[in-house]
Order: sequence, then structure tokens, then C-alpha cells
Amino acid sequence: MSKKLVFGHQNPDTDATGAAMSLSYLANQKGFDTEAVVLGEVNKETAFALNHFGLTAPRVIEQAGTEVDSVMLVDHNEFGQSVSDIEDVKISHVVDHHRISDFHTADPLFYRAEPLGAASTVLWKMYQESNIEIPKGIAGMMLSAIISDTLLFKSPTTTPTDEAAAKDLASIAGVDIESYGLDMLKAGADLSDKSEAE
Amino acid sequence: MSKKLVFGHQNPDTDATGAAMSLSYLANQKGFDTEAVVLGEVNKETAFALNHFGLTAPRVIEQAGTEVDSVMLVDHNEFGQSVSDIEDVKISHVVDHHRISDFHTADPLFYRAEPLGAASTVLWKMYQESNIEIPKGIAGMMLSAIISDTLLFKSPTTTPTDEAAAKDLASIAGVDIESYGLDMLKAGADLSDKSEAE
Ligand SMILES: [Mn+2]
Ligand SMILES: [Mn+2]
Ligand SMILES: [Mn+2]
Ligand SMILES: [Mn+2]
Repeated sequence: MSKKLVFGHQNPDTDATGAAMSLSYLANQKGFDTEAVVLGEVNKETAFALNHFGLTAPRVIEQAGTEVDSVMLVDHNEFGQSVSDIEDVKISHVVDHHRISDFHTADPLFYRAEPLGAASTVLWKMYQESNIEIPKGIAGMMLSAIISDTLLFKSPTTTPTDEAAAKDLASIAGVDIESYGLDMLKAGADLSDKSEAE
Repeated sequence: MSKKLVFGHQNPDTDATGAAMSLSYLANQKGFDTEAVVLGEVNKETAFALNHFGLTAPRVIEQAGTEVDSVMLVDHNEFGQSVSDIEDVKISHVVDHHRISDFHTADPLFYRAEPLGAASTVLWKMYQESNIEIPKGIAGMMLSAIISDTLLFKSPTTTPTDEAAAKDLASIAGVDIESYGLDMLKAGADLSDKSEAE
């Protein structure tokens, strides 16, 4: 099977990045040959999370079709939010938690979306169903993604499944949700780059 | 939670009908209030299957919005193949095995598609994941749907998962796949309505 790239939306957030790493690992366990990449430099919050779990940021790509024939999308489906040449590659998998819009395929595909707080929560369910163990670092990134998208379970999109997933992932990752989560959100909100007027 | 209708495409085939009955039962087990319906009279093959398992055909509807606010789609997603007023209702769930095209939603939804031989095979996986027992009649209709869409595993869309699902469903339904399948396909191909010229 030829190699596939796995990525989230442009201007990657922690869910776009963490869900790509998570789906890539899961797919590789199932026999696919994939690499998680990002469509732009990771933000400060994501960099904090990667650093905390001793991981390096996925490689940034500008185009997909120059490297592969086929891709997997996470945390988005709209072509306008995707890689610039999305219309030129085959989309074999999507794992998402958004509405479907500006999206179509030529062939049948694997599409898994649920109205949950984060794409990483959908992935947590997929790991449970597959009985595949989540490595510590991947669990840390999935937890970070859920905390980021739900603002520590304060956003109205938060569901009981997001909270259950976060609890399980925190125990694998070996962190306290509240204290780690606040540190991560603070790192993302770091104002040092901003002028006093902001 | 208000009632939802569950249906497959226009000109219903055995998968459109069987998958609607299957998803409706599964959703009701999970606390939803749903009714499986069809977008036209069932064909001879489907009628044979329903009769074999002692079931009555789902009710035919012309419109959905006159009865409910929200619907679940099976075995299709393209609006052009769906109920006439599909744009006026909320689509909360889709279970399918086709490409995605001519489809969009205003809100996040549950969408589950896999490139398998039948929507009923995707549903069989969902029952496995939920640990919900499949009733004998529903199993019979899901088996019939898989046999119909894969032409008894001869179609190039057939996967090992379709064969595994069919084997499990046949044991629940209490039929022999080959002999039941041939009888069902023959009933669908019944030429008694057709002129000699055909
Ligand atoms: Mn995102
Ligand atoms: Mn997200
Ligand atoms: Mn069909
Ligand atoms: Mn079908």
C-alpha cells in the first residue's frame, strides 16, 4: 500500500495536530503507511503540548499531490480549509467533528464524524473499538486537543464522552487534567508577542 | 427527544430498506425515538426477504418535514437521491458506503461511512461495537441486503468484512446463505411482470 499523508486544517490548532498524529499512529497499527503532517507552523499552545510530552512537531507541507496519491483528513472536511491541492488527491479517510460542507469525493471512503467536542475524542472512541493501546505521547496530544477545543470542558460543545476520554487519556499520559490544562491554555494565550494595545 | 425518520434512497433496494430497519432498531436501543420508512414501494426482492422473516414493509413517505424536524439517512447521502424536502430537515445521522457528493449540513452530525459492500455491513460493525444484540428479523434483512448489494459476494465491491458479517447474520437469522441467497435473488429477478420482448 502506498504512503498516505494525514493532516488537519490550515492554521493548525492543537486538535488538528494531535488528531493527525493520533490517526496516523492508529492507521499504521492497522497496516497503513502514513505520516502525520501539518499545513503550517504549530501555534504556541500546540508547541507547549509537544514539548511537554517530548515530541517534535510534524513536518509542514504546502502540497500533498507532489508526495502522495492519497490522504487522510482530520478535524476538517471543507476543501477551502484543506491543503491547496486537495482536489488533486484521493481522500481515503476523514475523522472529524464539524458539519459537512464544500466536500465531495469520487469514490467510497472511510468517513467518521460525531458531534463531539474534538476530533481527538472521535479518535479515542476508534482506539477503544480497535483495542489498540494509545502510546503515552499520543495520549498526551489527544488530551491536549480535547482540553483546547473544549476550553477545559467549559465550551458548550463539550459532551460527557469528551470528559470520559480526557480522564482516560490523562491517566495514560500521566498528567493532572486541571493543572496541565491550565498551563497549556496559558501557554497558548501567552501575550508576550502582542503589543500593549491588544 | 423528538421523533426521527430513518430512510434509504429513492427506488429503495434491499440495502436501503434493511439498513433503515437496522439503524432504526439500533438507535431506539440507544434511546432515540425513530421509525424506519421507505421512499417508495419495496421491490420484489425486498418483499421476498420481508416475507421470509415475517416482517411488514416500512411505511412509504413522500416528505419528511411534514412529520419530523430531523432524519437519519442510510445507503445514500446525495440530496438528489433523497426525500424531496431533504434541504428542509436536519440530518443528524448518516450510515453509508458510497462516495460523498451533493451533500452538506448546517451542523455537526454523526456520519459513518466505510468502503464496504453494503450499508448493512457498516451497521453490523456498529452493532458489534455497541454490544447490542441483533434481533432475528433485523439480522435476516441485513443479511439479505449484503447478499443483494454484493450479488452473493460476486461483486468487485465485496470485502472480507461483508463475508464475515453475512456469516454471523445468517447464524442469527437461521438461514443457509447460499440457498436462501439464491432464492432471494431469483425472487428479485422474477420475470413474470415483464413482456417477452424484455
Ligand atoms: Mn481545529
Ligand atoms: Mn477540533
Ligand atoms: Mn442501495
Ligand atoms: Mn447499499
